[in-house]
Amino acid sequence: MGQRILVTGGAGCIGSDLAGALLSHGHEVLVLDNLSSGKEEHIDPLRANPCFQFIHGDLLDFAKVQQAVRGVDRVYHLAANPDVKFTGGDPTDKDLKQNTICTYHVLESMRQEGIKRLVFSSTSAVYGISEVQPIPENNPTRPISLYGATKLSCEGMISAFQHLFGMDCWIFRFANIVGSKVRKSGGTVIGDFIDKLRRDPGRLEILGNGRQAKSYLLSEECVEAMLFAVDHAPHGLNIFNLGCGDNLPVRRIADMVAAAMGLEKVRYEFTGGEGGWPGDVPRFVLDVTAINRLGWHAHHNSEEAIALAIRSTLAESGGKDSCKR
Amino acid sequence: MGQRILVTGGAGCIGSDLAGALLSHGHEVLVLDNLSSGKEEHIDPLRANPCFQFIHGDLLDFAKVQQAVRGVDRVYHLAANPDVKFTGGDPTDKDLKQNTICTYHVLESMRQEGIKRLVFSSTSAVYGISEVQPIPENNPTRPISLYGATKLSCEGMISAFQHLFGMDCWIFRFANIVGSKVRKSGGTVIGDFIDKLRRDPGRLEILGNGRQAKSYLLSEECVEAMLFAVDHAPHGLNIFNLGCGDNLPVRRIADMVAAAMGLEKVRYEFTGGEGGWPGDVPRFVLDVTAINRLGWHAHHNSEEAIALAIRSTLAESGGKDSCKR
Repeated sequence: MGQRILVTGGAGCIGSDLAGALLSHGHEVLVLDNLSSGKEEHIDPLRANPCFQFIHGDLLDFAKVQQAVRGVDRVYHLAANPDVKFTGGDPTDKDLKQNTICTYHVLESMRQEGIKRLVFSSTSAVYGISEVQPIPENNPTRPISLYGATKLSCEGMISAFQHLFGMDCWIFRFANIVGSKVRKSGGTVIGDFIDKLRRDPGRLEILGNGRQAKSYLLSEECVEAMLFAVDHAPHGLNIFNLGCGDNLPVRRIADMVAAAMGLEKVRYEFTGGEGGWPGDVPRFVLDVTAINRLGWHAHHNSEEAIALAIRSTLAESGGKDSCKR
Repeated sequence: MGQRILVTGGAGCIGSDLAGALLSHGHEVLVLDNLSSGKEEHIDPLRANPCFQFIHGDLLDFAKVQQAVRGVDRVYHLAANPDVKFTGGDPTDKDLKQNTICTYHVLESMRQEGIKRLVFSSTSAVYGISEVQPIPENNPTRPISLYGATKLSCEGMISAFQHLFGMDCWIFRFANIVGSKVRKSGGTVIGDFIDKLRRDPGRLEILGNGRQAKSYLLSEECVEAMLFAVDHAPHGLNIFNLGCGDNLPVRRIADMVAAAMGLEKVRYEFTGGEGGWPGDVPRFVLDVTAINRLGWHAHHNSEEAIALAIRSTLAESGGKDSCKR
């Protein structure tokens, strides 16, 4: 039986994959997106479907959120500032607005409209630098980025709303999500390396010491896992790490990109330091036992996910940035 | 060597005790308070000290915070919505504004002014209902109140600012703090019971089933512990539970209040349910091993703290509400 479902950030890389999957399951899908990082071209293929509707609007506009939420069965709240980096000179309240305040708007409008089911895209960045590896969901959270801090703040509010107002909520702490869709702006590792090597095939500047190693997951697998978990853990507050259980060093990704571009003898220049940028968590592996026990396993490990994302990015993007959160 | 120190919420129960202690240690103390729950009478005894200055202002006013922060060596940020309860019909963004946004203002103004040392009053409510008891600091945080959720959000931002901008920060997760000072509004257990028994000495309505049991700590001990920890754990991000390591059932507090008022045969009427009010964590004990290992121990257990608070509240308040966070 088809439901009416709101996907915030549904014109983003993961959001549009999710919207497509929900449509193919027979649901009616509303996408709310301000197109700040989401792109029309991500949702263009969905527009032919009569069950699809796009609302151009900003989640900072409470009335707009309330209007979008009205009468839906479920909300997938994926809208966020997608850029995890903080660069000196940036405003420090970008994530506070885009994550904390927007998520409060989603929660409060759901409460007012009596909508009870919320799915939320959180991040492994809530953990910060963890002594325990792989990191389980009950790990302490000590974020070192404004992005991670404000996602943690969203999680806290979801936890309280779930308890106080009898909601069912799913919080997914994403690994680095990769895919073939092209991001409008913001450097992610695959697109960044392709861009640099197209400009200068002989050398590649790599942030950090090249030993940073993160968990990667394909966008379509991320979507599949969310849909699975929502079906199989249907009540209360559910928190799952979403990833594949291993990680991959940045230097290996550089090798893979260079090889895929047919380049040999690229000279790597490391900028030094452990982390790639301020707030970067240099090394982590997510413990994905909980989602595995529920019955879902990633089909591809980090290296396979990166290999597929490099191939599709090179094929489709002309070297621009692939999706990542 | 005296420092210049800002205490936000310094006209509150704990804040004014802290301001007094800092003055007695030879520091120059600025108090910033909007007097929404803090009271002039709490700071009146401090005004004679030439090292004391009061700024009447709201932390939602960024310019006011920036002005107060300028040139201080350290900030004790205790200002918050002191009422942990959420009552149906209340706005759901009260804690978001008073805790999350105000704390962001403190952090951002400190960043802009180059102030590096922040002490923050958090709460045991960040944990929510924990399977593990006593609850250690590395416990997962699953708040069930908007108060706990937004305090967690403050903690996340402090963690990120500490890392990104090289600050030293102390986060204290308070047990229920009790003392003799009178709160302007908002029911806490001692004042509530005294009020009710003065109105009707024969019966006492008790929220919940009476078996709720929380950790209590005297306000002056809370202040002493903060000063100790700041001196003895001077760098980085420090998170400490602050309490005495045991707890006390609500029914026992009722017995103690009735006895202190000389009442016998009070009929208790329980409103039922496990928790006292929506968002209440019915039973918890804080694991205070970390602060104990640092060298600080509470002098009074929960029962002694409550006994002293009952005595001083009855003596000084005419039955109004004693301080608690």
